[in-house]
Amino acid sequence: MDLIERFADRIEEVNRQIDKLLRVREPENLYLAARHLVLAGGKRLRPLLSMLSTEIVGGEWKRAIPFSVALELMHNFTLIHDDIMDKASMRRGIETVHVKFGESTAIIAGDFLFAKSYEALHDLDVELMHFKRLNEILTRCIEEICEGQEMDMDFEKRERVSEEEYIEMINKKTAALFSCSAEGGAIIGGGSEEEIKRLAEYGRFLGLAFQIWDDYLDLKGEEREFGKRIGNDIREGKKTLMIIHALSRVDEDEKRIILSVLGKSDASDEEVRKVIDILDSVGSLKYSKEKALEFSRKAKELIRSFPESETRRYMEEFVDYCVIRKR
Amino acid sequence: MDLIERFADRIEEVNRQIDKLLRVREPENLYLAARHLVLAGGKRLRPLLSMLSTEIVGGEWKRAIPFSVALELMHNFTLIHDDIMDKASMRRGIETVHVKFGESTAIIAGDFLFAKSYEALHDLDVELMHFKRLNEILTRCIEEICEGQEMDMDFEKRERVSEEEYIEMINKKTAALFSCSAEGGAIIGGGSEEEIKRLAEYGRFLGLAFQIWDDYLDLKGEEREFGKRIGNDIREGKKTLMIIHALSRVDEDEKRIILSVLGKSDASDEEVRKVIDILDSVGSLKYSKEKALEFSRKAKELIRSFPESETRRYMEEFVDYCVIRKR
Repeated sequence: MDLIERFADRIEEVNRQIDKLLRVREPENLYLAARHLVLAGGKRLRPLLSMLSTEIVGGEWKRAIPFSVALELMHNFTLIHDDIMDKASMRRGIETVHVKFGESTAIIAGDFLFAKSYEALHDLDVELMHFKRLNEILTRCIEEICEGQEMDMDFEKRERVSEEEYIEMINKKTAALFSCSAEGGAIIGGGSEEEIKRLAEYGRFLGLAFQIWDDYLDLKGEEREFGKRIGNDIREGKKTLMIIHALSRVDEDEKRIILSVLGKSDASDEEVRKVIDILDSVGSLKYSKEKALEFSRKAKELIRSFPESETRRYMEEFVDYCVIRKR
Repeated sequence: MDLIERFADRIEEVNRQIDKLLRVREPENLYLAARHLVLAGGKRLRPLLSMLSTEIVGGEWKRAIPFSVALELMHNFTLIHDDIMDKASMRRGIETVHVKFGESTAIIAGDFLFAKSYEALHDLDVELMHFKRLNEILTRCIEEICEGQEMDMDFEKRERVSEEEYIEMINKKTAALFSCSAEGGAIIGGGSEEEIKRLAEYGRFLGLAFQIWDDYLDLKGEEREFGKRIGNDIREGKKTLMIIHALSRVDEDEKRIILSVLGKSDASDEEVRKVIDILDSVGSLKYSKEKALEFSRKAKELIRSFPESETRRYMEEFVDYCVIRKR
C-alpha cells in the first residue's frame, strides 16, 4: 500500500474542506474555474507533509487541516497562473483552466484561490500568536514562489544559467512551499523552535529533490502516467538542470541542436527525442537523477534525527515517494 | 486646498512604506513590474479613507498605516490583472504593466503585490484578535472583488443586464474595498461594533458612488486629465449603468448603433462619440450622474450621524471629492 493510499482518509478530509470552501454559487463560472483543477485530483503532497510534521512533533494531524487546505489552494493557484504563462494545455490529464474557461477567468480563478487560501487559515484552532506566524510564513512563501517563477522565465531568455542559479530558482519556486508545509505543520503541532527549523529544512531538501525529479520525469516519464506531454519543458525553453549540465559539456554541433529545439513551441516529438538522446549521451539525465537522490538523502538524514516512530518512518517513505514517483 | 493636498503627509508616509516593501532586489524585473503602477501616482483614496475612519472613532491615524498600505497594494494588484483582461494599454498616464513588462510578468507582479499586501498587515500594532479580524475582512473583500470582476466580464457577453445586477456587480468589484477600508480603519481605531458597521456602510455607498462616477468620467472626462482614452468602457463592451439605462429606452435604430459599437475594440473616436450622443439624448448620462449623487448623499448622511468634528468634515468632503473629481 503506497503512502497516498495509507493516508486516504486524511486526503479525503482535505478534499472535503476544499469542496466546501469552493461550493458553487454565483458567479458560477468563477467557482467552476476555481474548482476545475484542484478537485481533479492531485496527490496532496503538501497537505500530507504538513499533517505528518504536526504529528512528528506530538500534535494531532487533524489540527493541521485548515493549514493543509491553504497550502493546497495556494499550490493550485500557482499552477493555474503558471499554466497561462507556459501556455500549457493539459494538467492532471485534463484541460488547463485557461483552455477550458478562457485566460481572463483563469487569472481571476487563480486570484480567488489565493484569497480562499487565506480564508482557510481562519479556521485554524491555534493560539492567535501562532495564527499570525502561520500567516507570515505562508505569505513569505508565496513571495518566494513569485520570485522563483520570474527567475524561471528570465532564465528562458538567457543562454547561460549556472547550476547554482538553477538551484536558487527551484528553491524559491518549489522548495519554499514544501518547506512552509513542514514548518507550518510543526508550528501547529507545538514543536520546539529547533524542531520547527529542522522540519523546515527537511521540507526544503525534499522540495529540491522533488523539482529536479519532476524535470527529469518531464523527459523520462510515461506520457499516460505523467498526465502531461513528454518534453514540455524543452518546448517551453526551460533551463532545467539537465539542460544546464549538458550545455556545458556538449560539442558545438550538439549545442546547436539543443538550442535550436529549446523553446521551439511546435517542436516535433522527433526533435525533442533527439535532444533527450544528447542529454542522455553526455550523462545529464544521470547527473540530474543523482542530484535529486542526493537532496532526498539529505532530507532523510534530517528526519532520522527525530526519535524513531511510525510517523518518522512515513516521513522517510515520503521522500522516496517524491523521487521515485512516476507522475 | 483639496483633500489630497491637505493630507499630503499621510499619503507620503503610505508611499514611503510601499517603496520600502518593494525595494528592488533580484529578480529585478519582478520588483520593477510590481512597483511600476503603484509608485506612479494614484490618489491613495483607500488609505486615506481608512486613516480617517481610524481617526473618527478616536484612534491615531498612524496606526492605520500598515492596513492602508495593504489596501493600496491590493487595489493595485487588481488593477494590474484587470488591465491584462481588458487589454488596456494606459493607466495613470503611463503604459500598463503588461504592456511594459509582458503579460507573464504582469500576472506574477499582481500576485506578488497580493502577497505583499498580507505582508504589510504583519506590521500592524494591534491586538492579535484585531489582526485576525483585519486579515479576515481583507480576505473576504478580495473574494468579493474576484466575484465582481467575473460578473463584469460575464455581463459583457450578455445582451441584457438589469440595473440591480449592475449594482450588485460594482458593489463587489469596487465598493467592497472602500467598505473594507473604512471598516478596517474603524477596527484599528478601537471603534464600537456599531461605529464599525456604520463606517463600513459609509464606505459601501461611497464606493458605489465612486464607480458610477468613474464610468461616467470614462465618457465625459477630459482625456488629458483622466489619464485614459475616452470611451474605453464602450470599446471593451462594458455594461455600465449608462448603457443599461439607454438600452431599455432607445428605439431599435439607436439600439442597433449602440450594440454595433459596444465591445468593438477598434471603434473610432467618431463611433464612440455617436454612442455617447445617444446616451446623452435619452438621459442616460444624467440618470447615471444622479445615481452617483444619490449614493454619495447616503454616504454623507451616514457620516453625519457621527458627532461634529474636523475629521467628520473631511469625510464629508471625501465623498464630494470622489464624485466631482475629474480623474
